[in-house]
Amino acid sequence: MAAGPEIERLIHLLSKLPGLGPRSARRVMLHLIKRRDVLMRPLAAALDSAAQAILTCPVCGNLDTVSPCAICADPSRDGKMICVVEDVADLWAIERSQSHRGRYHVLGGILSALDGVKPEDLNIDSLIARIGEEGTSEVILAMNATVEGQTTAHYLGDRLAETGVRMTRIAHGVPIGGELDYLDEGTLAAALRARRSV
Amino acid sequence: MAAGPEIERLIHLLSKLPGLGPRSARRVMLHLIKRRDVLMRPLAAALDSAAQAILTCPVCGNLDTVSPCAICADPSRDGKMICVVEDVADLWAIERSQSHRGRYHVLGGILSALDGVKPEDLNIDSLIARIGEEGTSEVILAMNATVEGQTTAHYLGDRLAETGVRMTRIAHGVPIGGELDYLDEGTLAAALRARRSV
Repeated sequence: MAAGPEIERLIHLLSKLPGLGPRSARRVMLHLIKRRDVLMRPLAAALDSAAQAILTCPVCGNLDTVSPCAICADPSRDGKMICVVEDVADLWAIERSQSHRGRYHVLGGILSALDGVKPEDLNIDSLIARIGEEGTSEVILAMNATVEGQTTAHYLGDRLAETGVRMTRIAHGVPIGGELDYLDEGTLAAALRARRSV
Repeated sequence: MAAGPEIERLIHLLSKLPGLGPRSARRVMLHLIKRRDVLMRPLAAALDSAAQAILTCPVCGNLDTVSPCAICADPSRDGKMICVVEDVADLWAIERSQSHRGRYHVLGGILSALDGVKPEDLNIDSLIARIGEEGTSEVILAMNATVEGQTTAHYLGDRLAETGVRMTRIAHGVPIGGELDYLDEGTLAAALRARRSV
């Protein structure tokens, strides 16, 4: 390529971002160079300050710039309910839905024989400890509706049984706005199995 | 969102990159946070140093960290041939093909009635000046094979006629590896029109 080492290095790093390859990384680079003052320098500064400031909450595993995180520190939230999620992205997704007013626990992954993720790699012991310490009344299992997500939920159900806490899992069924014709058989089967009287 | 202002700001800036939206920007952010030392900080530093170092070549419009750019400064390249491209990305694409050993001229855009891009917005005057000063023997028009690219090539053909320089345009036809059955009618028509005796 007809470009200096700074350009090569930047393209190389950009191409490592999820969803970007060498071609789109070049496109992003040119886009940034054209918007040097309004986007490129602010992005460099934002990356730098976020790398300094962002902390993992020692209680729940959420990312925030305060420790413990704003959710764990919020006294208006129901401290007796813990929603267990795989990842911080899932926590944020549920927060956007504004339908959970309790706290969270981020497992930091999902059991996977293929990827070699074992129970001891996930934040399960700290969850069991929290249930004891915080007098938790309900644990909501909010794993993804994938095979691995459900395996993890099943495993957690077994492990948490000893604590005697009430466990629930989020519902599976037809998504809001979903048309039956376009849904897969698995979703329809789940929706039928979980039918409720009206 | 349950995150601090540094996180919000970083996601906001990332979502402005081409090909990323709010959702993928969040994904990129979480990916970066997990790879803070191997990716996030190096990316911040690379963006910062690239923003400082990258210059637009005053001769051809290429981006480089030296001025004039490495291509314009390379004495082994044929200074009598100028390949005219819309954008720096196109210049890099041709460089990767290693099939042009002359110099370049970046127009910095394409004539577009829709986007209000007029001839005076493009680097055309500097191209005409270069042809006079550098004793150019051939100008290769390497616009995209789009309506706007061809309009621009046509306009350049008219404008450059006064200089008396030899003008060529890159060939249109079936791409290498292309199967006729999968190609559009326009490409096939162009390939037939430009047929050569064997």
